[in-house]
Amino acid sequence: MAFGWMDEQAELRRRAGLVRTLRPRPADSPLLDLASNDYLGLTHHPEIAEGAAEAARTWGGGSTGSRLVTGTTELHTELERELAGFCGFEAALVFSSGYAANLAAVTALAPHGSLIVSDAGNHASLIDGCRLARGTTQVVGHADPEAVRKALQTHEDSAATAVVVSDTVFSVDGDAAPLAELAAACRERGAGLLVDDAHGLGVLGEGGRGAAHAAGLAGADDVVVTATLSKSLGSQGGVVLGPARVIEHLVNAARTFIFDTGLAPAAAGAALAALRLLRREPERAARARAVAAELHARLTAAGHEAVRPDAAVVSVRAPSPEGAVQWAADCRTAGLAVGCFRPPSVPDGISRLRLTARADLSEAQIERAVRVIGETRP
Amino acid sequence: MAFGWMDEQAELRRRAGLVRTLRPRPADSPLLDLASNDYLGLTHHPEIAEGAAEAARTWGGGSTGSRLVTGTTELHTELERELAGFCGFEAALVFSSGYAANLAAVTALAPHGSLIVSDAGNHASLIDGCRLARGTTQVVGHADPEAVRKALQTHEDSAATAVVVSDTVFSVDGDAAPLAELAAACRERGAGLLVDDAHGLGVLGEGGRGAAHAAGLAGADDVVVTATLSKSLGSQGGVVLGPARVIEHLVNAARTFIFDTGLAPAAAGAALAALRLLRREPERAARARAVAAELHARLTAAGHEAVRPDAAVVSVRAPSPEGAVQWAADCRTAGLAVGCFRPPSVPDGISRLRLTARADLSEAQIERAVRVIGETRP
Ligand SMILES: Cc1ncc(COP(=O)(O)O)c(C=O)c1O
Ligand SMILES: Cc1ncc(COP(=O)(O)O)c(C=O)c1O
Repeated sequence: MAFGWMDEQAELRRRAGLVRTLRPRPADSPLLDLASNDYLGLTHHPEIAEGAAEAARTWGGGSTGSRLVTGTTELHTELERELAGFCGFEAALVFSSGYAANLAAVTALAPHGSLIVSDAGNHASLIDGCRLARGTTQVVGHADPEAVRKALQTHEDSAATAVVVSDTVFSVDGDAAPLAELAAACRERGAGLLVDDAHGLGVLGEGGRGAAHAAGLAGADDVVVTATLSKSLGSQGGVVLGPARVIEHLVNAARTFIFDTGLAPAAAGAALAALRLLRREPERAARARAVAAELHARLTAAGHEAVRPDAAVVSVRAPSPEGAVQWAADCRTAGLAVGCFRPPSVPDGISRLRLTARADLSEAQIERAVRVIGETRP
Repeated sequence: MAFGWMDEQAELRRRAGLVRTLRPRPADSPLLDLASNDYLGLTHHPEIAEGAAEAARTWGGGSTGSRLVTGTTELHTELERELAGFCGFEAALVFSSGYAANLAAVTALAPHGSLIVSDAGNHASLIDGCRLARGTTQVVGHADPEAVRKALQTHEDSAATAVVVSDTVFSVDGDAAPLAELAAACRERGAGLLVDDAHGLGVLGEGGRGAAHAAGLAGADDVVVTATLSKSLGSQGGVVLGPARVIEHLVNAARTFIFDTGLAPAAAGAALAALRLLRREPERAARARAVAAELHARLTAAGHEAVRPDAAVVSVRAPSPEGAVQWAADCRTAGLAVGCFRPPSVPDGISRLRLTARADLSEAQIERAVRVIGETRP
């Protein structure tokens, strides 16, 4: 029978204890949230909700078409202008998700005959972009500029159509990519650098301008940045930031731009409200980093094995996949929501708890989180 | 220089007259809109705007994480339950876009060793799904069940892991796929059928229940339907409808589900409001079809070469790519927004005007549209 083959896979998952299930949350969840990616605590801010509501009233529930037909409103253009200005790039292009932005950027920057050098720890959306791209992908070791340099040297064709692709902050361990060294390796060969700042925008750099800004790479003519509007900006959508020639190229060539309905006005309005709020309250970015540092210090002091956070993600090592699942479940029972990463979502096979340091966590909440994690340790 | 290679492509586009540019629209555009995919005229309905606003106020600007972590709210579950119920399927899973839903469905239904039989006229997102899938793709002629049958016969492996993939209504010409014949061809070989009802949901079938419902295929254990929330439902997002085993499989295996932030609450709220409105006012679906039929009849009577519409898309043949662009531009000058499809977006190289028949177009508006199209004909 069609689709019957799925039952066997389901049975294997069940036996391995790897079944994933959806757990709908209520609007008034009593859990202390250290699992979401709402790094700046903005998603529930009244200005963001009002930004969404106002945009829906003015522009409607949807954008009604491809960005190239009816799906570009003046609101989209305004959001693009402000995102580019804030992050320090010449131009910006907004997508329906960060995933779509990454598929667009990788495929459009890597035409037939080009080389993509991709970090082994990159996000699934960058990996799918590599799979869809016409260029050839070479995966290199995690956060290893020397390996990148070697890969670029093997590229026979004009190095000008090589692109190095990396997350700025890796989603599993929260560690940062060596952006300055990657840029140097690219420049030796005239290669482009494409970085995904999903976990950096709003957290790293002056006032949350992102990892590329922090590394002095904002506005460079050989650097392209992607980001999501769904984490620090508390909304939905994605963006590509870069030189105007790259943005014009994406408008003309990127399939997930051309053949996708434009971002809903409400999402654009919420992201714009969040961006303006962050401009007004730039200390939120530093606060998210400080919360992460404090979480890490306290967890380490309590004897946990935690990776020093480069942004707002704190990763705590768990003894085993089952141990990680049990640990996260016990935290939940004790009123604390944490993320749990385990195979096959982690490339190195190491299971972790994943905590996110929201800028709006109080001292008491941080203390409570650390206490619960200690008490539930397997 | 990195990215310098784009300038040459830009120059080629300019010389060929194929440059695509974004035209931001104001909130109070005076144009008569026959270009958007807002088939039921719902995107500006106050109930839809209020659905978005209310959801943003209750649930925040974003869903805050992957559907598997914090990104599933009770609102998402409610939307999924109502979509499944409305369309007559056992279960539903909502995505951030129809594009993401298609990538998920094709990749998850076509594992290593499987065969994908894909219609030559399929949407870009289905094609990208085929490219990402582990199975082997065989492209068959447009709307040709006999070719599908032959392709399935060549599949050496267990035919149970073959899947036939088709749009229900093709976006360029608005013609319908022969769903009943495709299902029959699949059943002869135990293959699955995956159809993209982006342009069928809300327009075809009883009260807009979609093309699969109209063909008597709703709820079948060998049929999976994808759709977008961004056309008839006036919002943003995508959905996969099918047997519970398929939905469970997607939750566990689909990368654009697992590694993507959940749909923004405002988009879920707007789509839910639209769905409830459509249930209350089922005549909107028939009205969209009637408007399309009338547009077609009047255009044909006026001597235009238009494809008989199977849903709400009316395609009018243009003499050339340049002619199509000029025609659409002249319509715009005369106050009418129409779509314009030309190479490379059209697989057959034929340029068209693309009109969408909104359910809320008045007789006077239809008349005006037909008059302007006639007067501006190149
Ligand atoms: C590093 C990274 N890139 C891209 C994405 C995708 O962004 P979005 O959820 O907006 O599609 C995510 C997470 O969702 C991410 O963690
Ligand atoms: C046939 C078809 N499938 C899928 C999509 C993608 O849906 P979405 O725009 O919601 O990503 C579209 C258009 O946008 C479409 O026309």
